Amino acid sequence: MRILVMHGPNLNLLGKRETSIYGQLDFEAVNGMIEKKALSLGVTAEIFQSNHEGAIIDKLHEAMGKYDAVVLNAGAYTHTSYAIMDAIKAIGLPVVEVHMSNIHAREAFRHTSVIAPACVGQIAGFGAMSYTLALTAVVNWVKDKR
Amino acid sequence: MRILVMHGPNLNLLGKRETSIYGQLDFEAVNGMIEKKALSLGVTAEIFQSNHEGAIIDKLHEAMGKYDAVVLNAGAYTHTSYAIMDAIKAIGLPVVEVHMSNIHAREAFRHTSVIAPACVGQIAGFGAMSYTLALTAVVNWVKDKR
Amino acid sequence: MRILVMHGPNLNLLGKRETSIYGQLDFEAVNGMIEKKALSLGVTAEIFQSNHEGAIIDKLHEAMGKYDAVVLNAGAYTHTSYAIMDAIKAIGLPVVEVHMSNIHAREAFRHTSVIAPACVGQIAGFGAMSYTLALTAVVNWVKDKR
Amino acid sequence: MRILVMHGPNLNLLGKRETSIYGQLDFEAVNGMIEKKALSLGVTAEIFQSNHEGAIIDKLHEAMGKYDAVVLNAGAYTHTSYAIMDAIKAIGLPVVEVHMSNIHAREAFRHTSVIAPACVGQIAGFGAMSYTLALTAVVNWVKDKR
Amino acid sequence: MRILVMHGPNLNLLGKRETSIYGQLDFEAVNGMIEKKALSLGVTAEIFQSNHEGAIIDKLHEAMGKYDAVVLNAGAYTHTSYAIMDAIKAIGLPVVEVHMSNIHAREAFRHTSVIAPACVGQIAGFGAMSYTLALTAVVNWVKDKR
Amino acid sequence: MRILVMHGPNLNLLGKRETSIYGQLDFEAVNGMIEKKALSLGVTAEIFQSNHEGAIIDKLHEAMGKYDAVVLNAGAYTHTSYAIMDAIKAIGLPVVEVHMSNIHAREAFRHTSVIAPACVGQIAGFGAMSYTLALTAVVNWVKDKR
Amino acid sequence: MRILVMHGPNLNLLGKRETSIYGQLDFEAVNGMIEKKALSLGVTAEIFQSNHEGAIIDKLHEAMGKYDAVVLNAGAYTHTSYAIMDAIKAIGLPVVEVHMSNIHAREAFRHTSVIAPACVGQIAGFGAMSYTLALTAVVNWVKDKR
Amino acid sequence: MRILVMHGPNLNLLGKRETSIYGQLDFEAVNGMIEKKALSLGVTAEIFQSNHEGAIIDKLHEAMGKYDAVVLNAGAYTHTSYAIMDAIKAIGLPVVEVHMSNIHAREAFRHTSVIAPACVGQIAGFGAMSYTLALTAVVNWVKDKR
Amino acid sequence: MRILVMHGPNLNLLGKRETSIYGQLDFEAVNGMIEKKALSLGVTAEIFQSNHEGAIIDKLHEAMGKYDAVVLNAGAYTHTSYAIMDAIKAIGLPVVEVHMSNIHAREAFRHTSVIAPACVGQIAGFGAMSYTLALTAVVNWVKDKR
Amino acid sequence: MRILVMHGPNLNLLGKRETSIYGQLDFEAVNGMIEKKALSLGVTAEIFQSNHEGAIIDKLHEAMGKYDAVVLNAGAYTHTSYAIMDAIKAIGLPVVEVHMSNIHAREAFRHTSVIAPACVGQIAGFGAMSYTLALTAVVNWVKDKR
Amino acid sequence: MRILVMHGPNLNLLGKRETSIYGQLDFEAVNGMIEKKALSLGVTAEIFQSNHEGAIIDKLHEAMGKYDAVVLNAGAYTHTSYAIMDAIKAIGLPVVEVHMSNIHAREAFRHTSVIAPACVGQIAGFGAMSYTLALTAVVNWVKDKR
Amino acid sequence: MRILVMHGPNLNLLGKRETSIYGQLDFEAVNGMIEKKALSLGVTAEIFQSNHEGAIIDKLHEAMGKYDAVVLNAGAYTHTSYAIMDAIKAIGLPVVEVHMSNIHAREAFRHTSVIAPACVGQIAGFGAMSYTLALTAVVNWVKDKR
Repeated sequence: MRILVMHGPNLNLLGKRETSIYGQLDFEAVNGMIEKKALSLGVTAEIFQSNHEGAIIDKLHEAMGKYDAVVLNAGAYTHTSYAIMDAIKAIGLPVVEVHMSNIHAREAFRHTSVIAPACVGQIAGFGAMSYTLALTAVVNWVKDKR
Repeated sequence: MRILVMHGPNLNLLGKRETSIYGQLDFEAVNGMIEKKALSLGVTAEIFQSNHEGAIIDKLHEAMGKYDAVVLNAGAYTHTSYAIMDAIKAIGLPVVEVHMSNIHAREAFRHTSVIAPACVGQIAGFGAMSYTLALTAVVNWVKDKR
Repeated sequence: MRILVMHGPNLNLLGKRETSIYGQLDFEAVNGMIEKKALSLGVTAEIFQSNHEGAIIDKLHEAMGKYDAVVLNAGAYTHTSYAIMDAIKAIGLPVVEVHMSNIHAREAFRHTSVIAPACVGQIAGFGAMSYTLALTAVVNWVKDKR
Repeated sequence: MRILVMHGPNLNLLGKRETSIYGQLDFEAVNGMIEKKALSLGVTAEIFQSNHEGAIIDKLHEAMGKYDAVVLNAGAYTHTSYAIMDAIKAIGLPVVEVHMSNIHAREAFRHTSVIAPACVGQIAGFGAMSYTLALTAVVNWVKDKR
Repeated sequence: MRILVMHGPNLNLLGKRETSIYGQLDFEAVNGMIEKKALSLGVTAEIFQSNHEGAIIDKLHEAMGKYDAVVLNAGAYTHTSYAIMDAIKAIGLPVVEVHMSNIHAREAFRHTSVIAPACVGQIAGFGAMSYTLALTAVVNWVKDKR
Repeated sequence: MRILVMHGPNLNLLGKRETSIYGQLDFEAVNGMIEKKALSLGVTAEIFQSNHEGAIIDKLHEAMGKYDAVVLNAGAYTHTSYAIMDAIKAIGLPVVEVHMSNIHAREAFRHTSVIAPACVGQIAGFGAMSYTLALTAVVNWVKDKR
Repeated sequence: MRILVMHGPNLNLLGKRETSIYGQLDFEAVNGMIEKKALSLGVTAEIFQSNHEGAIIDKLHEAMGKYDAVVLNAGAYTHTSYAIMDAIKAIGLPVVEVHMSNIHAREAFRHTSVIAPACVGQIAGFGAMSYTLALTAVVNWVKDKR
Repeated sequence: MRILVMHGPNLNLLGKRETSIYGQLDFEAVNGMIEKKALSLGVTAEIFQSNHEGAIIDKLHEAMGKYDAVVLNAGAYTHTSYAIMDAIKAIGLPVVEVHMSNIHAREAFRHTSVIAPACVGQIAGFGAMSYTLALTAVVNWVKDKR
Repeated sequence: MRILVMHGPNLNLLGKRETSIYGQLDFEAVNGMIEKKALSLGVTAEIFQSNHEGAIIDKLHEAMGKYDAVVLNAGAYTHTSYAIMDAIKAIGLPVVEVHMSNIHAREAFRHTSVIAPACVGQIAGFGAMSYTLALTAVVNWVKDKR
Repeated sequence: MRILVMHGPNLNLLGKRETSIYGQLDFEAVNGMIEKKALSLGVTAEIFQSNHEGAIIDKLHEAMGKYDAVVLNAGAYTHTSYAIMDAIKAIGLPVVEVHMSNIHAREAFRHTSVIAPACVGQIAGFGAMSYTLALTAVVNWVKDKR
Repeated sequence: MRILVMHGPNLNLLGKRETSIYGQLDFEAVNGMIEKKALSLGVTAEIFQSNHEGAIIDKLHEAMGKYDAVVLNAGAYTHTSYAIMDAIKAIGLPVVEVHMSNIHAREAFRHTSVIAPACVGQIAGFGAMSYTLALTAVVNWVKDKR
Repeated sequence: MRILVMHGPNLNLLGKRETSIYGQLDFEAVNGMIEKKALSLGVTAEIFQSNHEGAIIDKLHEAMGKYDAVVLNAGAYTHTSYAIMDAIKAIGLPVVEVHMSNIHAREAFRHTSVIAPACVGQIAGFGAMSYTLALTAVVNWVKDKR
């Protein structure tokens, strides 16, 4: 099984940025945890990051036929990008929405996810562990459907 | 480590109720999965269900000193009960918010969780697996803090 | 045919409370009218009252298999209780929503019924007669479906 | 006792139109049921239909002195016509608001009735039976006031 | 100079209707006052009343070339009829908006006039005198423009 | 193929009214263009205009069985008339919504079309050409469905 | 009869300020018209102007026992000053609200008058004539009550 | 004179919970202060606490005939419970609303009290002293009415 | 200890104004009660009244160094004056907000206090007693802090 | 005449994506229809697609001097991109807004076009035909202006 | 060139008040910086402060003919005073809006400036430097216009 | 000291675009003024422009360690881009927000800056001078912090 793990805007700065909210782990360390978890689940994880909304959409399109599922942290685009939501609906792959912080406990604008209606589920608030929980979730989800 | 797993209103009807949304598993089967997961994580899980907002608050109060953490599916009280939110803040235990369906993809009133600001994180959309992911999350969360 | 007639919060004070809005009849007299109407319709009516949201949900759950339909005046919970709405959906019985006063002609918060989307229909504004009209309605509704 | 039963816009198409919402009965059949019910209640029912807001107002004005009460299904004008509301207040007759579908369970714009503050009560969701329940209600209401 | 004085829905019931709000004068008496005022101002006043939004629009269209100005009490259509507003803009005649009651001191929906942006000015709250003030105003307004 | 072309309130004043918004062509000229276009498309076009919401609804009802499709410029009723929307749904004919001006670029109240959910599509902003584009659109739409 | 005519903030600049909205007449000329009208009505008019909300309230208080009625153009305080509204209610004198421009046809914030609920009526849009109409109105209003 | 002092949800945790907001005094100490104040005022105070909305309503009902007045801190139910508001109206006893923190200076949802329209007055922000001030207030209030 | 007691707009008319809301006591009598209470508490109370928002701000500034605390009834400025709120924050003295009527039970605009976030607490609904309760509260509050 | 036809995000997936909404035609087929229509209109059409908001803006800038008009389907950016709206205003070319589905009949967020105020007109709901209607419209529009 | 620099409510307390927001400089020091800057720009600066909305309006009126431009920090009146906005429009002088703190980064009510539509521009967030930047801006602005 | 000056979408068209709003200076001339000002302040200014939200975020990331501060005109992204706001917070550099037009005096959507909470301050309305004022401001701001 092949999983695409996508990081949206500003997540490349993890560990350098607002560590009181996002934790001390830097971007490479988080990716290392993701890869280790993938290994233990017996799946392949490709990791992608972009600050460009358009590039995230392009990558979602490319995912069709290449991956079985997507783990997506769309960063601040979560709250405004109907275009990413349309892309998720269009590609027909299961997508799990991930957030490192508990977005529902922060500023009001972060309480709304416009991409959620196109996703399987949402995991928020567990720092880097949000990604590994999501990997577990999506792998089991795909197995269940087969 | 001892974990309290709480089910709010109507969850006792699982498997009998709107199976297109909540899945085929009945309440006992879901609890079986939770207990099995607890076992594999080496922790104790007590399971509690009530349709009474006040009983959920009473139980949260009793949890102080008896449990290390709480996994809480507050059902429809999630969207209106500031009293449960106050209770979570008051007891000082880590609480993980769980939903079987992806509440952010359903009716508008379900997009808002008034208890979220008092919780560690939220997991929604994975059916019974939402609970086992939450158990994993909260056990690791507590270990990290120690 | 067996009908459960449920009274929500404060309805036990009928006749003692704001008689300009709810009329002069006291709680026992209203129940007497309900029972008399049930008799004339050839059905059995059980009457239940509680000020507890949770108890109303518990009772709705118990109704499955015991009653053919429910007549429900949820009182002020009408306007806030998504948990009662979920319970109505869960049990799969026809529920008719009743109000003694014309809630659409009173304070703004009373214009919205959050339980309505789960009910067959609504009757409001006819005092104690609202209940007897609802009994007639639900009995005919059940007969039509058979 | 003389009762005026008024049908607003599009109700003349009953039975031809969206039968999943409004039922299989056509307009003539509904009116037949109304007349039969009036007969059994010992009252006279005149039936009126118009797609014109102004004509509904004109007819309400004419009702003064000719009828004892009105049963009114204002159709979509229910949600916007303050002019009909003013007419109801002006004529001083008891008016019962009727809807065949449960308007509170449909699109948001149908949840608000601007004519409700001028009506005695509201009956919604019982198909053609909504009219016969309303006849019963208004006849009893008038008798009570005498 | 020729002035068209228009009464909208329900104003024909003046004196019969809610006299605590609209005063004791009946429709004929109000029109008598209007005609007397016109006489004293040396102008001709035609009086028109309709409960039909469309008839009010038709009449406004006919006013082009026949009248120098319009005094309009659009009744409850004041608050919803963009079509009347468009008609006023289209005909290019000066229109003075009149209300017998002080609409800004009543229910919230009456605080907004959607026709106001197309009118010269508004006079509200003086009972039948609102019309005579408006006649004075519009006659002077037309004289000023000449 | 027979097409009904409907003009709502104030459109009879075209060419006399606010020509900076609606253009210099008068009503007859616009209708001439519509008829010429119908001819070139090999279809029959009947043209109807009314300032009365009720008359528009009556005409829509009559269209059943007589026309294959409708081109409708509902004027200002576009933004408020749920009754026309219900009529469009009721008759089951394809209706194309037309506006001469770009309503989405004007006052805020004109941005919302309450009839749109019942229509096939919308064409706005091209003056008289909006009608001829709509004729082309609806004729092709009907051919496609056959 | 004694009438207090009050001008609120910025009205002292009349004739110097935004003449496309308020007209060419300067402050003295407007006051001259008011005094002339008072003379012709056989009443005394005192004229007062202040840019201070507090001074307007003080003056309203002083009016008790000294004047029979008040004509008030509260300028921009119209839209925000609940304190002036309370003052009008407190003094018990009839107050007529005046605006030179048609406030209902200007920016949205000017459509709401928070003082209106305490006033007899409102006259807006007739330039300096708004004041003379108001004088006529209030004088007749007082005579009617006697 | 007999006064019922009611504590709503979570108040039993006083002194254990968020002491920066609610102060250091624990629940017993607060109740001690209340009883001491009652003694000094020469009245009897019964103290009641529950986390159940329904239990609070039940207790209010029981208060009729047993107490002269109620001091009520409804906790988080203050902001949502129309059922408690209805109960207060129904029992006809004077109720003073109390909050230990200044709810108007906290999160937005705490600024609105839905029970306030049924209460005599509100005291908020003085910690345990809020209760003793309320006792003084309600005792004097009752004396004034006698 | 020295306390400044401030009355905002229109409070000088107490006893003359809307006595059904504010009670029969006139301004002097209320001040007498305040002074008597101050005496019994062993503190000095200076009393100040103004209808001017600016004068209230000036007086608050002057209070620094001269008084130990402030009791403030800001009247209608309570609901709009961010400037008074800023002044309270700026001077650093404890301020208790007072209202004679229960503002939370009146018109919607009175439910919001924009000065509350800068105040220690709020007392509303007890007529003149609101002031004496506030005096007691603020004196004890200051003693507690010492 | 040269026309730029622009497709926004996700439109490259046409025919693969949600065919119940967007139809069976794939992206190449739609473009073929556009080119064929351009040929029949005697104009040149360049076709452009991008998922990047910035790339759409860049392309609009490049259009100045190279094209006579633009046909733009901005996809989901229609509802949020003030930057595209600014770009349209900046380049001064006529732009016709196109949507394959009837956006006014879908989710609420799709009812608002923030780019509409900068466009000539809008065509929505006719599938691929929306583009060919738009080509016809814009070509005629340009010819009219010459 | 003569510039009027105006300070609104509470700014006289600078340096004594909330220094974490407004900085350590006191009022005199800020004025000293303004005067030094004026000197270096070769212009005259008069400095004015008032806590009275009315006094600010009076001063703006007096500025006509005496000053070439105004630098205005309206303090909290910025967010509510349409009267000051009207005054700025009335006097026809260029006014630059100044704030020491970044109002757009503080409480929501401070994000809206009702005076902005009448001002040339706005400078916020630079402490005392906001004034000197504004002086530079307005002096250059006036020179450009000459 | 090194300053990064960033121009967002459409600013490259300056001088070609809506000169009544943005002025006559073209993009190169504005940049020339910026460079000249930088020279006079003794700092280095790098100038960057992009229409891509993602490219602006990338550039902000690169600024860490290379620049001392940023002057940012985010164009229309100002009003929607939480991703740029997150980027500003993440990089920890002082950012001054610049707008050539007075955004607070234009369309309502331009009144809100979602990036403001992450910026030091805002300068708007002075055309090209907005940039030079911002350079001065940020250079002084950085010097102050050292």
